[in-house]
Amino acid sequence: MSAPRFKVGVIGATGAVGQRFVQLLEGHPWFELAALAASERSAGKTYAEAVSWRLDVPIPAAARDLPVRPAEPGLECDIVFSALDAAVAGPIEEAFGKAGYAVLSNSRNHRMDEDVPLLVPEVNADHADLITSQRRRRGWKGFIATNPNCSTATLTLALAPLDRRFGIEAVAVTTLQAVSGAGYPGVPSLDILGNVVPYIGGGEEEKIESETRKILGGRSGERVVMHPMVVSATTTRVPVVDGHTESVSVTLGRKAELEELREAFRTFGGAPQQLGLPSAPAHPVVLKDEPDRPQPRLDIHVERGMASLVGRVRPCAVMGWKFIVLGHNTIRGAAGAAILNAELLVARGFIAK
Amino acid sequence: MSAPRFKVGVIGATGAVGQRFVQLLEGHPWFELAALAASERSAGKTYAEAVSWRLDVPIPAAARDLPVRPAEPGLECDIVFSALDAAVAGPIEEAFGKAGYAVLSNSRNHRMDEDVPLLVPEVNADHADLITSQRRRRGWKGFIATNPNCSTATLTLALAPLDRRFGIEAVAVTTLQAVSGAGYPGVPSLDILGNVVPYIGGGEEEKIESETRKILGGRSGERVVMHPMVVSATTTRVPVVDGHTESVSVTLGRKAELEELREAFRTFGGAPQQLGLPSAPAHPVVLKDEPDRPQPRLDIHVERGMASLVGRVRPCAVMGWKFIVLGHNTIRGAAGAAILNAELLVARGFIAK
Amino acid sequence: MSAPRFKVGVIGATGAVGQRFVQLLEGHPWFELAALAASERSAGKTYAEAVSWRLDVPIPAAARDLPVRPAEPGLECDIVFSALDAAVAGPIEEAFGKAGYAVLSNSRNHRMDEDVPLLVPEVNADHADLITSQRRRRGWKGFIATNPNCSTATLTLALAPLDRRFGIEAVAVTTLQAVSGAGYPGVPSLDILGNVVPYIGGGEEEKIESETRKILGGRSGERVVMHPMVVSATTTRVPVVDGHTESVSVTLGRKAELEELREAFRTFGGAPQQLGLPSAPAHPVVLKDEPDRPQPRLDIHVERGMASLVGRVRPCAVMGWKFIVLGHNTIRGAAGAAILNAELLVARGFIAK
Amino acid sequence: MSAPRFKVGVIGATGAVGQRFVQLLEGHPWFELAALAASERSAGKTYAEAVSWRLDVPIPAAARDLPVRPAEPGLECDIVFSALDAAVAGPIEEAFGKAGYAVLSNSRNHRMDEDVPLLVPEVNADHADLITSQRRRRGWKGFIATNPNCSTATLTLALAPLDRRFGIEAVAVTTLQAVSGAGYPGVPSLDILGNVVPYIGGGEEEKIESETRKILGGRSGERVVMHPMVVSATTTRVPVVDGHTESVSVTLGRKAELEELREAFRTFGGAPQQLGLPSAPAHPVVLKDEPDRPQPRLDIHVERGMASLVGRVRPCAVMGWKFIVLGHNTIRGAAGAAILNAELLVARGFIAK
Repeated sequence: MSAPRFKVGVIGATGAVGQRFVQLLEGHPWFELAALAASERSAGKTYAEAVSWRLDVPIPAAARDLPVRPAEPGLECDIVFSALDAAVAGPIEEAFGKAGYAVLSNSRNHRMDEDVPLLVPEVNADHADLITSQRRRRGWKGFIATNPNCSTATLTLALAPLDRRFGIEAVAVTTLQAVSGAGYPGVPSLDILGNVVPYIGGGEEEKIESETRKILGGRSGERVVMHPMVVSATTTRVPVVDGHTESVSVTLGRKAELEELREAFRTFGGAPQQLGLPSAPAHPVVLKDEPDRPQPRLDIHVERGMASLVGRVRPCAVMGWKFIVLGHNTIRGAAGAAILNAELLVARGFIAK
Repeated sequence: MSAPRFKVGVIGATGAVGQRFVQLLEGHPWFELAALAASERSAGKTYAEAVSWRLDVPIPAAARDLPVRPAEPGLECDIVFSALDAAVAGPIEEAFGKAGYAVLSNSRNHRMDEDVPLLVPEVNADHADLITSQRRRRGWKGFIATNPNCSTATLTLALAPLDRRFGIEAVAVTTLQAVSGAGYPGVPSLDILGNVVPYIGGGEEEKIESETRKILGGRSGERVVMHPMVVSATTTRVPVVDGHTESVSVTLGRKAELEELREAFRTFGGAPQQLGLPSAPAHPVVLKDEPDRPQPRLDIHVERGMASLVGRVRPCAVMGWKFIVLGHNTIRGAAGAAILNAELLVARGFIAK
Repeated sequence: MSAPRFKVGVIGATGAVGQRFVQLLEGHPWFELAALAASERSAGKTYAEAVSWRLDVPIPAAARDLPVRPAEPGLECDIVFSALDAAVAGPIEEAFGKAGYAVLSNSRNHRMDEDVPLLVPEVNADHADLITSQRRRRGWKGFIATNPNCSTATLTLALAPLDRRFGIEAVAVTTLQAVSGAGYPGVPSLDILGNVVPYIGGGEEEKIESETRKILGGRSGERVVMHPMVVSATTTRVPVVDGHTESVSVTLGRKAELEELREAFRTFGGAPQQLGLPSAPAHPVVLKDEPDRPQPRLDIHVERGMASLVGRVRPCAVMGWKFIVLGHNTIRGAAGAAILNAELLVARGFIAK
Repeated sequence: MSAPRFKVGVIGATGAVGQRFVQLLEGHPWFELAALAASERSAGKTYAEAVSWRLDVPIPAAARDLPVRPAEPGLECDIVFSALDAAVAGPIEEAFGKAGYAVLSNSRNHRMDEDVPLLVPEVNADHADLITSQRRRRGWKGFIATNPNCSTATLTLALAPLDRRFGIEAVAVTTLQAVSGAGYPGVPSLDILGNVVPYIGGGEEEKIESETRKILGGRSGERVVMHPMVVSATTTRVPVVDGHTESVSVTLGRKAELEELREAFRTFGGAPQQLGLPSAPAHPVVLKDEPDRPQPRLDIHVERGMASLVGRVRPCAVMGWKFIVLGHNTIRGAAGAAILNAELLVARGFIAK
């Protein structure tokens, strides 16, 4: 599809997720990077001066010389991608929404707000309708839409095909999360070299348990109704740079055969694929057949980091079925997710000139 | 307690677990290292010549110059610790048992044999009685007794306090296992640096599922009856040298309070503690209170590697309760387990002069 | 430039370097992958069946279903890229050369042969002329041309600009080498996780010391004269997947200013750039200005792995000057080097229809 | 030897080196841990409350409940071990010295002061005499004595045997340093997982170059005369927890045979060995014969971390000789060094009741 071009800004642009936004927006067919904002420490510098760039590709030329501005309305753009730290994101994002910007936030602050969509476009594109009531209720021209935390993004893409076909009653997940999920400087090397830390702060487990149920939830009029499934999460940190691996067990709503599950994974798709969104993976779930896959080092770049890779689908003596799922935590789990959300909202007309 | 000294041998002495046996037996009050055996490749060499020593302490002086002999009866010792590869362990261990040796095996081959005890002395010291029927049935003067695989050893020490007090109906476990569990050369560095491999070969998951139920099983006459609990295991490899971390969920047989579980862990003990066995940990389960513990790098040396460390005990929305457990996979999970078993069998009179 | 298309084969195709050849040849404008060969173990299988693929991109479609043949003349191709193990490469490569194939070898066996060019095209493209005397002397229609070992490839690209402008009298280098340099399975994880191994087998240090002097050597009629510089190498292995880092000190032939050295690095180029060879980096030496660069994780993909990255150029109190250099060991240090050599030899007419 | 017991304090006690002091002082025969001090943030807490303990052994019981006091004179002790950050250590250490405390500092601030000894007791025990002039010149009853930075400590122990026997004219060293050298939180994991950082801030290279020459320097009356050797250092960070590896080349003052060098290393000793100081290693230099040793993971615990391990001694084509040396950076390279210094100064009467 063709679409008008929009000017976009990134707030929290110097952090780990902010850098990923800047990288993924390079050459985007619909979005033109026009503004970068960060904390006052960076004010008055160019982006190249302000950022401690940690990605293995160079800073895009279009971003190098952009001035870093304060994170407050006045940025010359239509869409604001927020990679702000949760400690400050709440009121800043609200200020942008009130000032008329389309705010696509990766922060946790507004994810569970009743009138804010928590979007995974293949799963719940219809939740975008919350924006209508959000605008009415808050009297805003702009809005806030959110993507889930990194572990939940990976998980829900793998649960949706099963829920759609069989229903899900219960989910238990243990994550093995990469250090890039904690930003920079983030995890001290003394904590993680040759080690496992069986805990991730910031309410990571609670976020997975609640966000998953909102994303997979249905609609009742203008509201989202939490999915009745029970979710239990244990989150750990492992010495991996990028890519969260998750060990998942599920209890389905009806009896199923292994081949049915495999087919559900293989054939899964949704709005991004139907609409041909620029960042959409051809296959949002990629099923691996080898017994020892998916692996972060080998599989994280599949579908440019926009898919969940599922492997080892097999019966679970306790819960019914179990499998492994892997996702790129700073692409589909953060910046890439917000960009795909923005594309969906453009395609659906929530963002317009 | 005082005990006579026994001459002991290690077969499979040059491998990773074999080296750990040699190290742990240094200065043992009851056991004197008298014989070392390995594959024919090593025959005619001294131990120092034959071994590619990979531990961070020197080769014990008593072992350096011992000749490496073939792994067959004729070794001058009373007790044989077997660290043989499963591909060859079966008939060799039987030959030693038949020849009158007390065989303490770390290999999987005979663990599930009906007349072979699979011992975790704090948990099922009474299973040692299987030795009597084994001898009678096989017409042997010697015997084979086994310890569980490394993940199971760690797990069962943590399950036993709960099963004893509340009963257990179901267990789901995801392991994050260290590379030393695969021996040497074992896991190629290209597979595991900065990576997770969500699969461990050799039937690791099946071993956990079956061995756990045998160890926690009851007795019916001369037989062990498998515990009726349901067990589901997912095993993964992480870039850690020593120490298996496990994420465990359990469904208990009755309602319990968090503080009851914590007390059950804290106060757990059994035969090794009552008998004061030389290798017994003071506390076979060590309860950690910090939210981010246990961790391999920081906690693996607690109780000289002979305890299971439990942390993050908390409710599980799906199964009832969940927690993290960590154990030293080549000490309590292998060589140390077999040595403790031998001590138990000496104390109980199954090994005697 | 335009060029005819050549059919190419890879022998030793299932190993780590062989896989890199197959990946880099995908979509090559001049070369069409037509044949794959490996040890007899793989015979009769397709490439996808035979290979344990360890790269983080998928097996190229064109390679998946190619049959794996024995590594012996008869392959349907004009050019043979050899990734054979040094234990077997010698006579096999000779057989191919004798049978009329252009053999581009990454193996060490023939590198120091008097009539075999050891090519780094930016440095010593004229050494290709050895092929003429090689053919005459050996009576072959084909030939063998080689690229240096991975550490030397990275090093010589950084030394050439200095030698060309100032002359070099002495070089001392300490390498920190990645595990992919040892192939697969290669370095056991127990040896390298959280560790440094201050030694690399196979004569790695001697290879750097001799190959560097041949590559930078001059010509005397049909012979290459070893460069008179003195070279001392210490090689170590570090827990990095791809990318060799080298700490280099040099004594130059004349007094120089820092800015002169920096300019020499920045402006360096040679035959591949002049000829516009398909795999040529725009800048074979990339100078980094940040004090903590180059780094393997961040910089290894610069120039698609075909450049040496130089940083921290500064005076050395002992030898005169010192700097850090980083190169991609399986691209510019192996498969990419051989492909660039083949491109040079096509452009120079040594390989023709 | 017998000695009176002294009360000791640690300032900067909650940091990485501070923790190591607390650990090493447990059960010390001469020193009793009596006071702990840290920044104001920790004031009013017990040590167990204030510290984020990162060592793999438990907090010593004697330290757990000690109150953490401000780092200023008034601490009830005779000796103060300083693990303060260099940003604040200068004036605080002076205040303690002036107030009559024996200050054993691991900080860099006063190392190069003309009247402050920079001690490696096996190498320059006689430099302790500077304390006499320091006291006279500054009018203090107390004093400041220092140990070198971690890389220099390891290096000078290996250079001294050569310098003593052959003289040294030049030294070139490339270090591969562990992350614990940067304290906690220190190096971000995103910077070092699977990576090498070819730069260490804080003037690490300059410290090696100057401190080495002071330590190996001679005496001229009350002054230390810098050793005339030329030193060049390149420092890098690698993903290792503990243990700095160094690749060293030296030019000796006279021709020597390999066996002479090996004997010089093997037989090296000094004041700590002669005086039988409690923390003295039996062999301050341990010579490894295996071609691939020393290695951090395998060798760092030799001599309880108080020795330098030397391996791969061999000719260097450029400088004459080269070798590898490894040392424990937070034991012999920091806390253990300061404790050994204190023991020397007690034995020599500079610290007395």
